[in-house]
Amino acid sequence: MDLTGLRLAVLAPIAWPAPPPGYGPWEQIAFNIASGMRRRGLDVTLFATGNSAFEGKLASVVPVGVNEDPALNGDVYGALHIGELFRRAGEFDLIHNNFDWKPMTYALATSAPPLLTTIHGFSSPQILAAYYACARRSFFCSISDADRDPGLQYLATTYNGIDPSEFAFSDAPGEYLVFLGRFHPEKGTHLAIEIAKRAGVRLKIAAIPQDEAYFREQVAPHIDGDRVQFLGEVRREAREELLRGALALVHMTTRPERFGLTMIEAMACGTPVLVAAMGSVPEIVVDGVTGFVCATVDDAVAKVPHLAALDRRACRARVEAEFSVERMIDRYLEAYAAALAQRTPPPPTAEQLHWRKHDWWDRPMAYTDIPEKPHSLHFE
Amino acid sequence: MDLTGLRLAVLAPIAWPAPPPGYGPWEQIAFNIASGMRRRGLDVTLFATGNSAFEGKLASVVPVGVNEDPALNGDVYGALHIGELFRRAGEFDLIHNNFDWKPMTYALATSAPPLLTTIHGFSSPQILAAYYACARRSFFCSISDADRDPGLQYLATTYNGIDPSEFAFSDAPGEYLVFLGRFHPEKGTHLAIEIAKRAGVRLKIAAIPQDEAYFREQVAPHIDGDRVQFLGEVRREAREELLRGALALVHMTTRPERFGLTMIEAMACGTPVLVAAMGSVPEIVVDGVTGFVCATVDDAVAKVPHLAALDRRACRARVEAEFSVERMIDRYLEAYAAALAQRTPPPPTAEQLHWRKHDWWDRPMAYTDIPEKPHSLHFE
Repeated sequence: MDLTGLRLAVLAPIAWPAPPPGYGPWEQIAFNIASGMRRRGLDVTLFATGNSAFEGKLASVVPVGVNEDPALNGDVYGALHIGELFRRAGEFDLIHNNFDWKPMTYALATSAPPLLTTIHGFSSPQILAAYYACARRSFFCSISDADRDPGLQYLATTYNGIDPSEFAFSDAPGEYLVFLGRFHPEKGTHLAIEIAKRAGVRLKIAAIPQDEAYFREQVAPHIDGDRVQFLGEVRREAREELLRGALALVHMTTRPERFGLTMIEAMACGTPVLVAAMGSVPEIVVDGVTGFVCATVDDAVAKVPHLAALDRRACRARVEAEFSVERMIDRYLEAYAAALAQRTPPPPTAEQLHWRKHDWWDRPMAYTDIPEKPHSLHFE
Repeated sequence: MDLTGLRLAVLAPIAWPAPPPGYGPWEQIAFNIASGMRRRGLDVTLFATGNSAFEGKLASVVPVGVNEDPALNGDVYGALHIGELFRRAGEFDLIHNNFDWKPMTYALATSAPPLLTTIHGFSSPQILAAYYACARRSFFCSISDADRDPGLQYLATTYNGIDPSEFAFSDAPGEYLVFLGRFHPEKGTHLAIEIAKRAGVRLKIAAIPQDEAYFREQVAPHIDGDRVQFLGEVRREAREELLRGALALVHMTTRPERFGLTMIEAMACGTPVLVAAMGSVPEIVVDGVTGFVCATVDDAVAKVPHLAALDRRACRARVEAEFSVERMIDRYLEAYAAALAQRTPPPPTAEQLHWRKHDWWDRPMAYTDIPEKPHSLHFE
């Protein structure tokens, strides 16, 4: 199906501009999608913050990211942002939602064109109720095979993609490990520290605050400015340099990673990754080639001496082949064509309905930090 | 305008069923509106929780109140609840929204019939952004003249109304003061305690938790089971008995009351009120007749000995004349007729636009607990 000229609305989140100056993976991917589709000849309108730098049509109701200005209420501006897209829904042939579940509830109420939602994450078990309720109104894409919910039907897995040309390659292995992301137990900063210390290599940490108690108790005491260095949040160029100069990215999450954008950013620079064997990891990292997929902390410590021997060109090549923006765009174009052909998502299968009766807490999955199941007056 | 047969959708919040078994003023009023309009011959559909007890048409997507079941995510079910109403919007001639600002953002995106929003409260200064953005898409009613935002145009003030027949009258003044509501500094439980202690009368407190630290530090230490009694949350019948048997309701809020449903419930039983001179109070309480409007705590202490001499029949009569459901329905019918005649709310006046440029923090109002103004990157 030739989609040239297709009137596409891409809805980005508004926590940060698109692209974000620092942290902001959902905004980054929404921007990559909008830019990539524009290059392929689609008529793209990106709904994002007013300070976004998009060369195509930009539609904004909020001037800056709600995380950039504490006077802005994220709920209010999120709803106005979504409402504005659906007010204009008749101008588009397809809406690509990268703003979680809320936009689907607006689609329920309107005669908007086909809607495709990339499920960038399930923030809590309860959120599944929204996806189930809207499953006949939105098509879904997952960002890895591992991240699929068995109660939902997916059009495709559309791995996130980055522009390799934005990441300079280096063939020389660095001498430090690097941790990038947010301070949250599920991101495993504490494990990165343990591995670096036991393996006797320096660790550089660049992350944004999230779980303050975790940072105070499990991260801060180890920071000494030498063996364990804390760089704060690093912005685009510094981030790339930090990744490129590393021996490896340590990414020992304690919860299955949905995709792992940082892993492909590191690999794009030629830097291998030392990762926990969970979630999307086996889909992204070729064990022993672009990094080491580790079952335990002991395993990771044992692998550190072998990191320098990995071929950094293989890391780069893997990103170029599978995780570039252009590859992501190819995958989304196929998904768009399927959505446009079907128009309406199919009814759930018996097996999907079976899974929907269970809630997330009962799932046979490797999640380790699912909150305690609340007592329910109503559900079984 | 004869509105018999008008197809009216009334949107209730879903924290609790409508009517609520205990606390739940917004749900109670939404229920009173739906029931009252049905009695007047309108074709009413109430959107509320599935365990609501409405004799007319009930539409539900959530089985119980989200505050009744911790497994339910209020955001998710709120959005599905609102989305369902707007999905069915074409079936109605008018939508009466009692669910704050979010439904207006769905109305922006649809060709729904005229929408009337009762502003039951502004939960924070930032929320005004939503009202301003949606002011051409929804008509507004205030629940007191005092609670109007100068940046908005209102169709009417529609005081809340209760059914006096649900509150048995007693002519005999009781011997204790009563505090009803939530534990939050703005509700002034600590002032009620001070007044009762200084005046030498017993205080009975029936309230639900909200601000835990406030309760722990400023309320709990005074509870002795005798002079200061804590009854927990009291449900419908016990609540009415508690109000009826009291010398007065103490309602010394530290923030202007928007309406004050508890005041009229007390007055309906014949119980006068001892209230802070703020917000809606002068519109509701006739000073020296249905209670005392007090400028200070000292003032309130001095008034306690005079409470028993007030004519309890005057309290009841005031509610019957001004704050009954039927009186509220009369007011809303006028507002409905105005909304249906205008169809679209008028553009803002220059003065309203002037006010909208200010934010709430700059307002010359008596608010005493407005949070500190956040630093803004963007707004002045």
